[in-house]
Parts: sequence; structure tokens; C-alpha cells
Amino acid sequence: MTATEKRNKLRAVLAGPRLVSPATVFDALSARVAESVGYEFGILSGSVCAATVLAAPDIALQTLTEFADQVRRITRVGNIAVFTDADQGYGNAFNVRRTVEELEHAGLAGLAIEDLVMPSRFGNNGPDELISVEEAKGKLRAALDARQDPSLVIVGRTAALKVDPIDKVVARVRGFAETGVDGIFLSGLEKLPDLDAIRAATKLPIIVGSAPIKREELAARGVRFCLQGHGVIPAVVKAMREVFTHLHGGGAPGDLKAKAAPPEEMERLLGKAQYEKWRKEYLL
Amino acid sequence: MTATEKRNKLRAVLAGPRLVSPATVFDALSARVAESVGYEFGILSGSVCAATVLAAPDIALQTLTEFADQVRRITRVGNIAVFTDADQGYGNAFNVRRTVEELEHAGLAGLAIEDLVMPSRFGNNGPDELISVEEAKGKLRAALDARQDPSLVIVGRTAALKVDPIDKVVARVRGFAETGVDGIFLSGLEKLPDLDAIRAATKLPIIVGSAPIKREELAARGVRFCLQGHGVIPAVVKAMREVFTHLHGGGAPGDLKAKAAPPEEMERLLGKAQYEKWRKEYLL
Amino acid sequence: MTATEKRNKLRAVLAGPRLVSPATVFDALSARVAESVGYEFGILSGSVCAATVLAAPDIALQTLTEFADQVRRITRVGNIAVFTDADQGYGNAFNVRRTVEELEHAGLAGLAIEDLVMPSRFGNNGPDELISVEEAKGKLRAALDARQDPSLVIVGRTAALKVDPIDKVVARVRGFAETGVDGIFLSGLEKLPDLDAIRAATKLPIIVGSAPIKREELAARGVRFCLQGHGVIPAVVKAMREVFTHLHGGGAPGDLKAKAAPPEEMERLLGKAQYEKWRKEYLL
Amino acid sequence: MTATEKRNKLRAVLAGPRLVSPATVFDALSARVAESVGYEFGILSGSVCAATVLAAPDIALQTLTEFADQVRRITRVGNIAVFTDADQGYGNAFNVRRTVEELEHAGLAGLAIEDLVMPSRFGNNGPDELISVEEAKGKLRAALDARQDPSLVIVGRTAALKVDPIDKVVARVRGFAETGVDGIFLSGLEKLPDLDAIRAATKLPIIVGSAPIKREELAARGVRFCLQGHGVIPAVVKAMREVFTHLHGGGAPGDLKAKAAPPEEMERLLGKAQYEKWRKEYLL
Repeated sequence: MTATEKRNKLRAVLAGPRLVSPATVFDALSARVAESVGYEFGILSGSVCAATVLAAPDIALQTLTEFADQVRRITRVGNIAVFTDADQGYGNAFNVRRTVEELEHAGLAGLAIEDLVMPSRFGNNGPDELISVEEAKGKLRAALDARQDPSLVIVGRTAALKVDPIDKVVARVRGFAETGVDGIFLSGLEKLPDLDAIRAATKLPIIVGSAPIKREELAARGVRFCLQGHGVIPAVVKAMREVFTHLHGGGAPGDLKAKAAPPEEMERLLGKAQYEKWRKEYLL
Repeated sequence: MTATEKRNKLRAVLAGPRLVSPATVFDALSARVAESVGYEFGILSGSVCAATVLAAPDIALQTLTEFADQVRRITRVGNIAVFTDADQGYGNAFNVRRTVEELEHAGLAGLAIEDLVMPSRFGNNGPDELISVEEAKGKLRAALDARQDPSLVIVGRTAALKVDPIDKVVARVRGFAETGVDGIFLSGLEKLPDLDAIRAATKLPIIVGSAPIKREELAARGVRFCLQGHGVIPAVVKAMREVFTHLHGGGAPGDLKAKAAPPEEMERLLGKAQYEKWRKEYLL
Repeated sequence: MTATEKRNKLRAVLAGPRLVSPATVFDALSARVAESVGYEFGILSGSVCAATVLAAPDIALQTLTEFADQVRRITRVGNIAVFTDADQGYGNAFNVRRTVEELEHAGLAGLAIEDLVMPSRFGNNGPDELISVEEAKGKLRAALDARQDPSLVIVGRTAALKVDPIDKVVARVRGFAETGVDGIFLSGLEKLPDLDAIRAATKLPIIVGSAPIKREELAARGVRFCLQGHGVIPAVVKAMREVFTHLHGGGAPGDLKAKAAPPEEMERLLGKAQYEKWRKEYLL
Repeated sequence: MTATEKRNKLRAVLAGPRLVSPATVFDALSARVAESVGYEFGILSGSVCAATVLAAPDIALQTLTEFADQVRRITRVGNIAVFTDADQGYGNAFNVRRTVEELEHAGLAGLAIEDLVMPSRFGNNGPDELISVEEAKGKLRAALDARQDPSLVIVGRTAALKVDPIDKVVARVRGFAETGVDGIFLSGLEKLPDLDAIRAATKLPIIVGSAPIKREELAARGVRFCLQGHGVIPAVVKAMREVFTHLHGGGAPGDLKAKAAPPEEMERLLGKAQYEKWRKEYLL
């Protein structure tokens, strides 16, 4: 599947009636597992990239190019359409342009540019800080302008629900919508009335990070894509800890079988049969 | 801990009486988990790198530079001393020189250069093929010559036990030892008498990939470092599959807690307290 | 211009009556200069990449991924359609597949896979060594099969003219043509009758590395793309040496103006006006 | 020469009586040319990296990791000790820590962290904006704290001379000196009395970007390292333009000889004899 086809798959979801959730993917192998389970969409968030690539918290340490490299490792191995938060676009509107260029090139299906001050400002130890609506709109226009493949999904993400009253949030969302973005990504959605107010202001499809609201309620109000946390990472950590603890304590490798994917599954995930077929075609 | 200190930690093991096994590590997060369990040594094999970075089987698809980048991601986040098989040195003896340069720069504690024809030769669909002893010795001399930090451990690895009679294996090992390598890595060791024969030919420390032989028996014959398979990868796959299957089937994210590392553990692994300390020192 | 449009520009040349020569480009800035002079095509050869990125001779030291990164730096900044020799495809036919994937992704317009034993074989200090026709055909089939965008130009390159009698060369070219490649790249062409013999065997467009033959003669025999050496590299070296020698000897920076592109040209090449326009659109 | 030896070479200059200027280097080949002319020091500035790697103006588009990669390409090929401006440290003080880690790892001899708001702030179209002294001091403390090799030179760079009265500049420099940095880098120095005032406030060695002041006057006031512009880049552009124009206009490649470094020089720069020696030692 080409990048454009993946993007159109994501566009179809945003245009349709369904609410879809992506798998959290973080390397090539995780993407293959997610696809084998049936997922059509994946997400690589900045926080997950920082955790697995840098073993660091989510404080804007990774660079655009290393993020793009990790995205590319994921997009090259399968048909999952990958969405990502591209943080604040890695700088100002010039950097947003480059962010879109590099992430489009890396094969993403869609991305969100957020309206946060990132990395955190000197002297700020309190809540998130937002950039102004005008600055955010400039960034979104830059993002849209930098897009080469019109099928790439570009979404404006706002953290305003965490710090602003709802009328200011609505005004911000309205501003984002004016730029021509393909959707609105809401961080920190907690209450249904807030969603109603936003929905009344825009008919753009909505993405939410996660919310204590039933999926049907979300879907009925235009939410088309909904993250579900990144629980696969702590699950992977737990699995690693168990294996490492067993072996470090002198346990036998053979005792681990019950906790492990069988060899046939590993071979399927790594495409062994495909390579053997190619061997016969080109190498023998 | 500096790279040189890590190398000397590995050298101390090779010079001592103990038999040590490393944790299989493949990204920054896995290295942190292994260290938190108590591991002092890690291994990133070519096969594990191919599986996680490329979702490909172990057929020499990854490049030296992308392998070195992955090594660096691991070495930069902790005190684990990382050993690796550097396959055949990614080409001929010139490439071996560069392999040592790049992997030394990436912070490895030790590496092995193997005597296999890699990637596999056109027309060969049978067993592994070895390069000649003379060619292998040239590669090992190139590796030793390219080393800048004399504490870096460089080992000659042979797959001869899989295809040659024992006397030829012994002659090969003897040849490797003449080059001045720091140890001998044996692939495919199955029988104790083979190890005895090799041990009689060299007093160099021995590394084995894995072997159906008791650890005490190995240790008594000069084996100082012993891999234990890479079972953590299928265990991680199984964990991912369970999470993905649960969520894809409509399960609630909250139900995953029992299968996940707790938030405090995640924060410890990602150094949250350290960053908060730094925030107070430099940013407030 | 999209990658596909660049590829079709190259295809049009190969299908037409003209003989075109590309500019040797090696970084983003050189690509901009070449484009500003009027070039529509560029070439990044393996030898030039090794010289500028590694300061090394042409002995297969660079890796596929670092080569692809360098290609990408060039393709991202302009409309020049870039062709490259992809050496032997960085390994066996499996590696050829990956070579095509990565170089297609990097935005190349076309590439050649050569039939040389690379890196050079242990014990060989003589002339170039060719792989068998069957092996080369396997590699070309692998390359064609790995291509995702059908407009990407894939060419079989042979060094046979340097080591084989003409009838064997012709047989080899005929074999290459059977695989469905888009053209034949001839290294070491010296004599017109050799070209005639090859032309009689195939109607595929021909690329030559360089040849002591008049361009009209080449064009009349199906040569559509012809390298002209990489003389820009020694010219750049001479320019650097003069500047460095002047300054190191105590010369004033201001004395260098006559040897330097004027500031307005530098600003044009770096897109200053474009960025100022974007600043007004998104940042003010 | 190891990275530490290169750093100590730079330290010796900063501690001595001489005023030294580095060569502007931007890739492996340019570093080799500079070294062959006799240079012991090189500089890769952010602006030169942006120009050659991205063909972009100096507006903070390149990422830390791609900058570090380019530094590494330069440091790996010779004995030149490389200094760089690391811009603002690619973000806040957390990012400064990572900047030092990555650039130290890339083999730099020294680096400067500047007190500019970068990338430029939304709405600012005027002069450079400085961060507060307190914020800058936090960044410098972060940089010093992140250093692993104590020989790495870390310098505070200020653009205050461009926008502040001299007494504020002096206060800022004094604040920088309190952090324990190894020197002060002055941008925009125009007048000798300003230098006198700064020198009276600190005995730290001084680096200047360039200044319309005689070198003896600078040296007498503690300036130990002085850039001389980056004139090699426009000179390289002019050389490229001439070659490209000649060939694009139908000129013969052979006519370029007078403008090109001779083949023997190219072979020396690329280490041909060294590789031939290695071939004999390991490959024949």
C-alpha cells in the first residue's frame, strides 16, 4: 500500500460515521504485530518515541529528524496507516514547514500540530502554556502550505481545554478551522458539554487523546479517531522485566516458552516465507 | 560510566573465573529495564536488530551505520556494557576497519567478527559457508588495527563447528588466536569434547552463543560469556499481541493494568525524578 | 516537482533522441547551484559520496543508509532529477531489494545496479571481477520487483567491457535486457564498434560513464545519458585550498571577494526571499 | 589523535598568548583539505551546516541530531580540532544537556551556547532577542553539568553587543563567567573600548566571531580564537558554478584541468596510499 493509499484510508475514517482507535506502535516489529491483529491504524506519539528511543520523559528531547527516522522504520514495513502528534512542530512556523516535509516524506498518514509552548519556558513550573491563536493559526497555515501530497491529513491540536474557559476554547477551535485543517485534535477532554460546544462551532472531524466519555457519545459528536493511552509500553516493560528477572536469577531459557510467542509467529512477523520465496526467485 | 570503564568491566569478566550472561537489549527502554534488574552486560545481536528495526529475518539486511545508531541509542542511556556480534564486519577487511571505528564510537564494550560468507552467496541454499582462515585472520588483524581504545574487546567468532571436523576447527581457532584477539566466540557448540579440544589449543577466554552444556562445565573450560538466546523478543511480542488483541476487540484500556508495569516504575525507568531535579537547577 | 515527475522527466530523455549529461551533485548546496545553471539532471555517484562524506576512495565503504540519506539531502531541495549508481546493490539480491526501496524512498529518479564483485574479494589485486550473468539477472529482477513507483528508472550496469571479449559482453547485455530493465549502463566503453555490437543486440536506451567518443556518435547509437567525469570535486578542492592557504598564511578575509560568489547569489541559492515571504505569511 | 587530545589542543590555545583562527569546514573532504594546508582547528557553524546540508538560510532549521551527524563526519577523518556554535542549545536547558551529550559524543573539541531567542519569536521582525541572564546562566550550568570529558571546551556566547548598552553586556558576561564556562564568545564586536570593558570584567579567554579590529589588538585583550567569516563557501559556489556552466554549455571535461586539483592531490586527500597499504596487510 502506498503512502497516499494509507492517507486516503485515514481520510475515509475521518469522513465516515465510525469512531476508530489506533494501535500504539513504536518500532517495526510492533507495527507488524498490530497489523497481524487486524489494526489498520497506528499511532507513534512523541512521548512513546521519547520513552523507547531515548528512555526519557515527554519533555521535547527528541529531534524532528530522529522522530522522522523512527516513523519511517514503522511505515516501511506494512500497511498500517500511521498518525502522529508532531508536538509543536519542533519550533516556529518555519520548523513546522520542515516538520511536515520530513514527516510526509517518512510516510505518515496524518499528523497534528499542537498549540503548546514547547519545550517548556524558563521559569514555568505550572500548567501547560498555550501559544496565541494567531501564532497557532500561522503554524497551521505553514503546515498546510508545506504539504505536497494533498491526501496527507493535517490536524490542529489544542490543549486549551486544560487551561482555558470553554468559550475561549471554542474561539480557538474556530480559528483553527479557518485555516483549512482536516480536523481538530482535543487534548484533555473531560466533559460532554465541552465537546458539544466545540461540535457546535465546527463540523470538522474530531480526534481526542483519551476521554472519560463513552465511545458512542464521542462518535455521535463527530469524534472519528480516539487514542486509548499507550498501555502497550508498560505491558512490554512488564514482559521484559519478567524475562530478565528469570534469567538474571539463574532461570533456564527454556522455561520461558509459555510467556513467548511461538517460533512460527516470529517467522510470520519477520516475513520468513516471503524471503524464502525471494531467495528462490533471485538467489538460486 | 564511560565507554572505557564499561570495556574494562567486560575485560575483567573475560579475565576472571566467572561465567556471565548478558541481557538481550534492543532499544533504550529495554536497556533501562535490564539495568534495573541488575544486569551489568547487554547484547544487541544482528538478528535482534533486524527483527526490531526492520522486522526482517537475520539475512544481513541492516547496514553498519543503522546498526551503530541503534547501538548508540542503547549505550547512551545507562551503565550496561554492551557486546555485539558485528556479523562478518559488513564486507571485506576494509569494511571491518570501518565497522570497528563506528561501533567503538557508538560506545560498545566488545564485538565479534564472524567467519561467515555474508550475505549468503548466489546459488547457495545449503549450510553456512566459511571464509578461509587466511581471510578471517586478515579481517581480525584489520579489526585490531582499527581499534583506537585498547580496552575495546575484539573477539574472533567462528561458525566452523557447524560445518567442519574438529581438527579443522581447532586449526582455525589457533589461527584466530595468533592475530591477538581478546577471545574466541564459538557458534554451534554442541559437545563437551569439542570444547575440550578447542580449550587445549588456546587459553583465550571463550564466548559461546548457546550450548546444551551445563554452565559449570562451560566455566571450567574457559567460557566466560554465554548468550542465552533472545527470548525476550518473543515475550515482548506476546505481550504486545495480548494488549493489541484486547483493545482491538473493544476491551477497555483500564483492564490492562494487571499486565502492565506500574506508573512509578515507568517514571523510574524514564528518569523522571532526575529531570525534575534538573528542572529546578536550570529552568526555574 | 514530485519524485514521480522527476522520474518521468528522466524517462522522457531515455525515450527521446537527445543525449543528456547530468551535473555531479554531492550535497544540497551543489544541487542548488547546478539547478541555477540550468541543469535538469544530476548524478551522485558512489565514488563522489565516498569522497565527500567519508573522505575515502571508492572501495565500497559507505553504507546504503548513509548513501540514501545523502541522496535525500539532494533530492529535497530542488527539481533536479537525480540518477545514481547504486554500486552492486550493497550485497546480494536481498540487499538489492532494500537498496531499491531506500533509494526510491530517498527520491531518486533512476539508479543502476552493477555486475561487479564488491567489495573486492580477498586475494584479488587485479582487474575488476564480474558476477555471473545469472547472478546479475537475479539482482536486476529483484530490483525491478522491489520498485513501488513504476516510473522509477532501473538500469543494469556492466563493467564487462573492461574484462570480457565483446561477444560475451553482448550476451551479458542481452541477458540484462531480458529482465525488463529500463536501460543498459556501460562502464569502460572505449571503441565505437563495441557500441555498435551492443546496440545491435538491444534497443534499450544506453547510458555510458564516459567515453572517448564524440557525443553525436553516441547519440546516433542509442546513448541517451552520458556522464562527464566528476571534475567538479577537484575544482571545489582547488577553491578550498586557495581560500584556506590564503587565510592560513595571514591573508585578509576581505581579499577573497574576487574568488567568491557574491552575497546576492548566496541568498538566492539559500532561498532567502522565499523564507522572508513565509515569515510574513506565518510568523508576523 | 583522540577527541580528548584535540580538546586539550584547543585548551592550550585558550590558555596561551596566541590568537588562532580556524578553517571553516563542512564535510569530510573540506576537513582533509584544511588539515593538508596546515590548520589545526576547524569550525562548523550552524549557518554553514544549514547552507550545505539543507540549502537553507540560518534560521534554526537543522536539528541537533543532523548537526551532530555532520560534526561526526568531520571529526572522524582527521586531527583537526573542531569548534562549533551550538546555537541556543536546540531548546531549553534540558535540550542544552542533550546538545552537549550529542556533540561531545560526535567528537567536538569545543562548543558555544548562545543567549538568543531561537528560532525567532512569532511577531518579531526586528533585531535579535536575548534570553534573560538568569535563563542563559541556567543553560550554561546545564551544559557544564552534562559534559562527561572535562577537557571539552564549553563557552558562553552572547549577542548582547548588538542590542544592549555596554554596562548590561558586561554584567551579562560577568554572569556567564560565574557559571564556570571556559570562555566567552562575543558576537557583533565592533569597538575596542567594548572589548576593554569586557576584558576588565573577566580574565576568561575570549572568542570573537569577527571584528573590524586588528588581530594584535584582539590578542592583547585576551582574544584567543577568532573566526574569519565563512568565505570558503561562496568560493566553493563560484568554483561549482564555473564547472557547471562550462559543461552545461557544451564545454569539454578535459578543459577543466587548470581549475582542478591534480589527481595526486585527490588521492592524498582520500588516503589512497593508506588503503593500498591496508589492502596488502589484510586483503592479499
